[in-house]
Amino acid sequence: MSIILSRAETLSLLSLSIACSGVLASTFKGDGEPLIASLAFSGIAFACTYCLIQWLGPSFIHAGLKGRDMSKSRKPEIPETMGAVCAVVYLLILIFFIPFPFYKDIVAATSGGGSRDVTVSHEQLASGRVLHRFPHSKLASYLSALLSLQSVVILGIADDLFDIRWRHKLFIPAVASIPMLVVYLVDYGVTNVVVPVQLERYFGTMIDLGWVYYAYMAAVAIFCPNSINILAGINGIEVSQSLVIAVLLLMNDGLSLYAAPAAPYPHPATDPHLFSIYLLLPFIAVSLALWWHNWYPAKVFVGDTYCYFAGMVFAIVGILGHFSKTLLLTFIPQIVNFLYSAPQLFRIVPCPRHRLPRFNSRTGLMEPSVTTWHRPPGKILTAVLKVLASLPIPLLAIKKDDRGNVISSTNLTVLNLWLVWFGPQREDKLATGIIGAQFLVGIVALFTRHKLALLVFREDNRQ
Amino acid sequence: MSIILSRAETLSLLSLSIACSGVLASTFKGDGEPLIASLAFSGIAFACTYCLIQWLGPSFIHAGLKGRDMSKSRKPEIPETMGAVCAVVYLLILIFFIPFPFYKDIVAATSGGGSRDVTVSHEQLASGRVLHRFPHSKLASYLSALLSLQSVVILGIADDLFDIRWRHKLFIPAVASIPMLVVYLVDYGVTNVVVPVQLERYFGTMIDLGWVYYAYMAAVAIFCPNSINILAGINGIEVSQSLVIAVLLLMNDGLSLYAAPAAPYPHPATDPHLFSIYLLLPFIAVSLALWWHNWYPAKVFVGDTYCYFAGMVFAIVGILGHFSKTLLLTFIPQIVNFLYSAPQLFRIVPCPRHRLPRFNSRTGLMEPSVTTWHRPPGKILTAVLKVLASLPIPLLAIKKDDRGNVISSTNLTVLNLWLVWFGPQREDKLATGIIGAQFLVGIVALFTRHKLALLVFREDNRQ
Repeated sequence: MSIILSRAETLSLLSLSIACSGVLASTFKGDGEPLIASLAFSGIAFACTYCLIQWLGPSFIHAGLKGRDMSKSRKPEIPETMGAVCAVVYLLILIFFIPFPFYKDIVAATSGGGSRDVTVSHEQLASGRVLHRFPHSKLASYLSALLSLQSVVILGIADDLFDIRWRHKLFIPAVASIPMLVVYLVDYGVTNVVVPVQLERYFGTMIDLGWVYYAYMAAVAIFCPNSINILAGINGIEVSQSLVIAVLLLMNDGLSLYAAPAAPYPHPATDPHLFSIYLLLPFIAVSLALWWHNWYPAKVFVGDTYCYFAGMVFAIVGILGHFSKTLLLTFIPQIVNFLYSAPQLFRIVPCPRHRLPRFNSRTGLMEPSVTTWHRPPGKILTAVLKVLASLPIPLLAIKKDDRGNVISSTNLTVLNLWLVWFGPQREDKLATGIIGAQFLVGIVALFTRHKLALLVFREDNRQ
Repeated sequence: MSIILSRAETLSLLSLSIACSGVLASTFKGDGEPLIASLAFSGIAFACTYCLIQWLGPSFIHAGLKGRDMSKSRKPEIPETMGAVCAVVYLLILIFFIPFPFYKDIVAATSGGGSRDVTVSHEQLASGRVLHRFPHSKLASYLSALLSLQSVVILGIADDLFDIRWRHKLFIPAVASIPMLVVYLVDYGVTNVVVPVQLERYFGTMIDLGWVYYAYMAAVAIFCPNSINILAGINGIEVSQSLVIAVLLLMNDGLSLYAAPAAPYPHPATDPHLFSIYLLLPFIAVSLALWWHNWYPAKVFVGDTYCYFAGMVFAIVGILGHFSKTLLLTFIPQIVNFLYSAPQLFRIVPCPRHRLPRFNSRTGLMEPSVTTWHRPPGKILTAVLKVLASLPIPLLAIKKDDRGNVISSTNLTVLNLWLVWFGPQREDKLATGIIGAQFLVGIVALFTRHKLALLVFREDNRQ
């Protein structure tokens, strides 16, 4: 892997950076446009991440952050944990971004802000906050989001360094979500949820979940990063699925902002979606830069750090944006993969350390990997496995010996299942197929959610 | 190094944790006492750090975070970067601490805080905030401090992993201080400073420094971590000097709180000092646990991570507590060491990669290390070196060849100077001497500051 950027790369990244810096400078002139600033920052973030990944490769290998790509004939050794570079650039960009959505509003609205002579009329304060700006009270939430992200990065790096045990790994995102939950408790503390129409006669229109709500938020924070981490193992899959989720969430935000009522201007429901957009745009930028290097044939690995980081961004956006149910709709393939993996994760079926598809070096294609039954499964399990394997759309593939005993079955991940369905294929084709399916499922889910919300709730926040 | 705690260690740490947890639980009952909670949290932090350092040693060595102690006869290989453990425990404790100083006040003072039915009378809100509590607006500062600390930990770990170049290292704390400075800009933005009485006729009583004030804050943030990092290299010196500074700052806080006027209760000048105490108590706790393992003969190294982390804690306390000038008074030995090192840092005198005292394996004592002049210094420099070496209290030691040319001179650090003055001594005696001197200088400086402040300023915040 060369650390030198090609002339074309240098020129295009340089012009992108210059253009974005220009846009950024121009937002200072007027009233300051956070949304445009966020876009400009994202461009800069893309350029920085792209260059840094290219430049830091040898240093990472030298520091022992490296791995072998087993799905290639030559099994090259390439840098790992490049997600940490993404995450650091992302965090810096989010920190530099703070003054744009928060600055003027605060100085104008508080008398304690020093000697600046911006004045705002009473009516403007009450109703006329410029769109794209946040009230000051949101600053603590924003900072707590950054703290949780930094925590997950520190713990993710520790994981990549120390190879933490699987059952401890699971709780890394839980620990990292503590800052967000504590600030939520201190700063906001609302744990009421709207009750579906059908259940109103039992619970009333609102129900205060109390600590259960905190447990729910922690569960979301544990689920998102880990579910990305188990749908992994082939070039580009971790970054691509994260990009798809981010784009789906961005579409949901755009829809909600577009449909928000024009008066009172701006509608309070716009804040969470702006928050979400400001977190997602730079995320998409740094992920795209990483994707460029991580797509087949991969020049770098993303590391667990990236999976934790990406999952945490989504968990934060969903929790602090108060649309965690919609968030989970964009995670359907990951949920399916988790449920499908459950028999192995809970050791009903033997689970090898790595379950990624097997590379056949003769054909150059990926094949479903199998787990070998050293002792044949019990009667019931054998029957279940045989039924699942002989369905019109089989849910796994098995091998039997002469006496009909199951001697091996495919590992239970959607990647392997895809290969069972569509036969061996090259790594990039497999990734493209899975990602395409994920995008389609997500679009349908979001459409359904916005159409069906009124069946179970009195109001949709799109209305 | 055994990873098993002795029975005595287990029993005492366990009883400390249980006692502290009990105290913590009891603060829930009454009005919540953040100061007592902070003490209890510190006890828990000490116990956790102590155990984790003991347990994680082999994992750190396995992950390549290790170094040889060159100042022992057997040059044992021991774990490095243990400062990262301190920092992670410290950050977690500070996050769990958030509800104690911030919680009730907010819920009581804001109507947006949900459905809790705490009521506070108007007078109480205006003047009667319970001592030890912060107004809500401080939350953003507190979170920005945590962000800066986490940033410095991430960058410190990167430094320990990648061996970043010296001239890049210098700016690690600058990058880490960005969150704090950005939030300062957004949240507070006051850049006025009081003008000394003698200069009032030129500048008026207050002067707005604008961006110069931000540059000053960044300079403080760069100086503190790096100055601790260059007064380093023998067992226990990094942690001990940090502990002395922390204790001095704590004494300063105690003095200021004790002397604060009783009415209006509480005095606004108490907030910064409470902020400082809440940050320093757990810092002392985790540092003490590290000190236990790092004091002569060291069982672990602290790593650059610890120096950055400790320096950043002090910079944050000084900057957000608005007593950065007093802060610098506690750094006099570090400032002297920096000035004394300057000729080497700026390459007027040759500078080897390591300047720590040399271990004489025959005597078991530390001796001043020397830098060899491959080309003899120029005439003026030779004269200067000879004068400095022949002063009644010499400022360095030199060796001359037959023709009177300087062939070597001692490295310019206060550790070597101490050895020039008092002769070779064992590592722990050297550390004790330096630390004792540091403590004395600090006490005198603080005393002078509080006595002399009224000569240059109209009011001391002690009054």
